[in-house]
Amino acid sequence: MSSSLNAHLVEEADSRISNLIHKTPILTSSTLDEICEKKLYFKCENFQKTGSFKIRGFLNAILKAKESGHLKGVITMSAGNGGQSLAYSASKVGVPSIVAVPETVSTTKADAIVAYGAELQRCPPNITILEETCEKLAKDLGYYYVDPHSDYEVMAGHGTVVKEFLEQTPDLDALLVQVGGGGLIAGVAKYVAEVNPKIKEQSFQVINECCQKRTFSVNNQEISNAMLLIMQRLKVVIEPSAALGLAAVLKYREELKDCHKIGIILTGGNANLNKLQF
Amino acid sequence: MSSSLNAHLVEEADSRISNLIHKTPILTSSTLDEICEKKLYFKCENFQKTGSFKIRGFLNAILKAKESGHLKGVITMSAGNGGQSLAYSASKVGVPSIVAVPETVSTTKADAIVAYGAELQRCPPNITILEETCEKLAKDLGYYYVDPHSDYEVMAGHGTVVKEFLEQTPDLDALLVQVGGGGLIAGVAKYVAEVNPKIKEQSFQVINECCQKRTFSVNNQEISNAMLLIMQRLKVVIEPSAALGLAAVLKYREELKDCHKIGIILTGGNANLNKLQF
Repeated sequence: MSSSLNAHLVEEADSRISNLIHKTPILTSSTLDEICEKKLYFKCENFQKTGSFKIRGFLNAILKAKESGHLKGVITMSAGNGGQSLAYSASKVGVPSIVAVPETVSTTKADAIVAYGAELQRCPPNITILEETCEKLAKDLGYYYVDPHSDYEVMAGHGTVVKEFLEQTPDLDALLVQVGGGGLIAGVAKYVAEVNPKIKEQSFQVINECCQKRTFSVNNQEISNAMLLIMQRLKVVIEPSAALGLAAVLKYREELKDCHKIGIILTGGNANLNKLQF
Repeated sequence: MSSSLNAHLVEEADSRISNLIHKTPILTSSTLDEICEKKLYFKCENFQKTGSFKIRGFLNAILKAKESGHLKGVITMSAGNGGQSLAYSASKVGVPSIVAVPETVSTTKADAIVAYGAELQRCPPNITILEETCEKLAKDLGYYYVDPHSDYEVMAGHGTVVKEFLEQTPDLDALLVQVGGGGLIAGVAKYVAEVNPKIKEQSFQVINECCQKRTFSVNNQEISNAMLLIMQRLKVVIEPSAALGLAAVLKYREELKDCHKIGIILTGGNANLNKLQF
């Protein structure tokens, strides 16, 4: 594990993984722009390998571990996208993988992790138990534990999404980033702060302000409305957490009044569509 | 209205409309390929302006009519995508539009047509009455009636989807095309038959065989299953009729055993998602 996170680590991660993942497209919608009175740019990580941005961080961490010496196997804890990403990355690298999952995990998500080749370790739904299980198994088996929340290589890999985004859409005023476990926002914020001088300054001051200094919260109903709007207008399938950015744009009009060109990361597309009725 | 349909008409349509519509992407999925034991290429007309391929034909017919002389207004009959396409095209050209709809049309679809700027003319749900209404209104108002099923410029415009598809994915063995009112298959089949000599012959013999000489039918359950697979795996929103191609590939394995690289047109994305539950 690297000892600090910086833009160089993100650039290294990008060189390491870019040939193995998709360069995902940016979508726009004139109707959504009219509704929000903004120019919105959606980075479609729902089209990414394994259906979410998380492949970026896990693949980077595993490739880096392999570069650094003999890699016997990998383990992480996850209830979904992280587990799929670890399993897929391990299969590409050719090592076995274990995912510690809360025993409350849905069958769909558990099946998806197994389908990518990992072995499941079911645990009580408690983060301390999940972490201890990973640490113990890693020690016993000699596996590399990819800590989803504090491994800098995971964060750096996640940060590559914004490197790519800014290359595709360079003049954004603001970037809205979901905060879950914190790995995405860590990688993104570090990268954006450091590359600031390279890009049009005025714009980037605003990105820094919005991305690093402000947090917005949205509720389930606002997420559900934004998710439906995205699916209806952009015609892409996303999971609920991917709708947070649009939900915030719709809710925080006053707070975002100085941000005109806004980047939103559609983090993943692994929605449960089993209840869909036509 | 042109007096015959041929590849030249499709090429003219392409020059006329290509700057005003999206060049839609091709998506692939290794999981769907494994399930079907084929290489499948999906042409994403769900991302097209107004959410379906129909903008191609209507826009072409209306632009052609405008080129040919003074255009006072346009009218068509439709219960959905055709009406949206007419309305959008008329607004781009700057003329008023009327869409004769069956009075059973859903509020969602009626609203979408109106949102693009057309006036609705509600009629009893009978195709003869709808046609006669269009003809009478066109005569009384001096509007151009865009007949969705027999106007060669509509068919030629629709045919541009396959011109673009073959340029993006030149070596297909087969192309599966939905048959609704017949406008899409007419434009596609004519174009494919005529440009045959320009493209690798062996492949194209198979395209002709599959596209022009064989029809497959699928039922609602098969369509629903294929629609769910596409939304889960490609992460795109499609309407039920767009799932027909994949439903046929899944059902007619024996009949399609000699076709390895298959093109499928995701015709539209205007699905009713109001019943979606998360």
